[in-house]
Amino acid sequence: MARQQRTQVGIVGAGPAGLLLARLLKTCGIESVILEARSRAYVEARVRAGVLEQGTVGLLEQAGVAERLHREGLVHGGVELAVDGRRFRIDLAGLTGKAVTVYGQSEVTRDLIAARLAGDGPIVWEAADVALHDLEGDRPRLRYRVDGVEHELACDFIAGCDGFHGASRASIPAAGSRSFERAYPFGWLGILADVPPCSDELIYASHGRGFALASMRSRTRSRYYIQCSLDEKIEEWPDDRIWQELKNRFGPDVAPHITTGPALEKSITALHSFVFLPMRHGRLFLAGDAAHIVPPTGAKGLNLAASDIHYLSRALEAHYRRNDGTLLAAYGETAAARVWKAERFSWWLTLAMHKLHPEHSFEAEMQRAEIDYLASSRAAQTVFAENYVGLPF
Amino acid sequence: MARQQRTQVGIVGAGPAGLLLARLLKTCGIESVILEARSRAYVEARVRAGVLEQGTVGLLEQAGVAERLHREGLVHGGVELAVDGRRFRIDLAGLTGKAVTVYGQSEVTRDLIAARLAGDGPIVWEAADVALHDLEGDRPRLRYRVDGVEHELACDFIAGCDGFHGASRASIPAAGSRSFERAYPFGWLGILADVPPCSDELIYASHGRGFALASMRSRTRSRYYIQCSLDEKIEEWPDDRIWQELKNRFGPDVAPHITTGPALEKSITALHSFVFLPMRHGRLFLAGDAAHIVPPTGAKGLNLAASDIHYLSRALEAHYRRNDGTLLAAYGETAAARVWKAERFSWWLTLAMHKLHPEHSFEAEMQRAEIDYLASSRAAQTVFAENYVGLPF
Repeated sequence: MARQQRTQVGIVGAGPAGLLLARLLKTCGIESVILEARSRAYVEARVRAGVLEQGTVGLLEQAGVAERLHREGLVHGGVELAVDGRRFRIDLAGLTGKAVTVYGQSEVTRDLIAARLAGDGPIVWEAADVALHDLEGDRPRLRYRVDGVEHELACDFIAGCDGFHGASRASIPAAGSRSFERAYPFGWLGILADVPPCSDELIYASHGRGFALASMRSRTRSRYYIQCSLDEKIEEWPDDRIWQELKNRFGPDVAPHITTGPALEKSITALHSFVFLPMRHGRLFLAGDAAHIVPPTGAKGLNLAASDIHYLSRALEAHYRRNDGTLLAAYGETAAARVWKAERFSWWLTLAMHKLHPEHSFEAEMQRAEIDYLASSRAAQTVFAENYVGLPF
Repeated sequence: MARQQRTQVGIVGAGPAGLLLARLLKTCGIESVILEARSRAYVEARVRAGVLEQGTVGLLEQAGVAERLHREGLVHGGVELAVDGRRFRIDLAGLTGKAVTVYGQSEVTRDLIAARLAGDGPIVWEAADVALHDLEGDRPRLRYRVDGVEHELACDFIAGCDGFHGASRASIPAAGSRSFERAYPFGWLGILADVPPCSDELIYASHGRGFALASMRSRTRSRYYIQCSLDEKIEEWPDDRIWQELKNRFGPDVAPHITTGPALEKSITALHSFVFLPMRHGRLFLAGDAAHIVPPTGAKGLNLAASDIHYLSRALEAHYRRNDGTLLAAYGETAAARVWKAERFSWWLTLAMHKLHPEHSFEAEMQRAEIDYLASSRAAQTVFAENYVGLPF
């Protein structure tokens, strides 16, 4: 017989989506239990994105976990594009009145875990074999095991925040659901190193040898990426080769400012676009990577998870505080509408910046024309900027 | 022995590009001879585009042939988009301070021919077997036959304004030149009819059954297009079927305003993007369709021809008046830079508006997201508008 427990909102996954939801609910007096398949150490060490939209920062403020973010985060009012060595800047702040903040996702996660564990409620670490039941009824249940002991958590609602490979999305019947997917014929080779960034702002480089991105986590920790083919092996990329390739792609203007150093982490990631609909099934609400994946080019993954949680937390608040279920009923459509916009931007930026077409093909010239136009048009830069800093919720 | 003749600028082709060039040169006192393979009647009757950018109108004013245009042309401060029946307007004038003018290309051609023949200089109609010689020397020559008699025209410069199938581009050696091409997997079925337009402004419709465009030539003459497959035969499209299909695609909001009537002209056109580089070879300068083709979606064909002529006429003026060859030397690059921008817009709008991807594919959703974003963002509408009214010369 499983051990019985009860909560208002059962949250599957202690990534930023699940943790932020728990925190925002708590500020409204709504109780939750978070189940996480991994250990705390694993979750806190995961290397992920690091660029927060202003709206995401606002949500973290609202959640009361923005103090360290404001102390340590780097506010960026612009990004640079380097195309075959020619550089131009997109003035995010000047064009939109908004900025982005560089602050690692793992830092966000740590801040949220610390706040949660300071009295908000439990996180069940290493919850094995999480299974979702009775999603279409009034009392959905989560079953899981900890140290071999069966548990059952009865909930009013379940938030599926357990990522692309989690159990939540897989619990929605195929009939009536649909997924949209696109794979890209290249990957990103990423390197993390404790060296100062080559520039105060991010640099997106489009080069004959392929795309490259100079990003950062702090003033002393840099994150670089280069486009690579999907059949490359990380063993073929000793640190020196990565640094040299970065210098090639950023060109003679930027290369002298690239400080090299040993890799703290190196990996090759495939790029995907993925959307699953509906984002709501009965009393299960998907949020973040459980429902959608974007290629990392637009830095939208974490920010989309945050916007899902914005809609979901407001909807749950309306339900519990005012007995108003309208927002919950509309969650699937509301969240998906913003998801598609971010998917569009991430897809566009990915196609615009990566080496993708044979040299001298019409399509390669269209890529070049797209960037030339972006370099010359204030309106085009405003389109880039308003998407990059995040469209309004 | 060929009859010998001499001029400053030999112009191949009496389409709008060649005629406008001759007129602008005349206003600077530069002499030209125009050779045209077809008859005057044929040239004046050709059904072509009908939307003039403000810059094109400005050139026609400068050429002194805008009087009837201003009297009869319709100034449009906006265009409408209809997506699966939902309509929104892009306020061209409000977003850019510029407008477009609806005035048929055949009217422009007639005005230019009348001006030319009022004393500017000759148009040699039905010039057969036009051949270009000595393009790399100081004295290029045009050879042609009229009524079986050989002629030779010695020129300082030759303007190749003889369209996609003309002799000019074919005279440039393959070594050192390159063409960029894209075909689209659909065509446009066009119908011209003496019926009042269904709306005061153009309507671009994106529909599950395919793209449609409601355009016009005047308040009493309408021009409609529908996307069709390339293997359709025009005989399979009696007028009634076309009108019914237009009503389907524009939806119940617009359909009642569509006045039907017998077709004056019906045709199926394939859509292509094409760019040939360089646009200058020795003393030959290509302009208009001789150098580039755009799909008609953005109404850029005639306008690009006009902008080529803007650059070319200024360059020739600088040469003859100030003995300054800089602009002539740069013509290829200067004209091509604007060509690529218009190619980009035409390509983008074509891909955004036509039925192109399987329903429920990621790509189909990206199309939808693109239009949704356009419907919701002032910046995106400004991008559309500034391209539609024409980027600055």
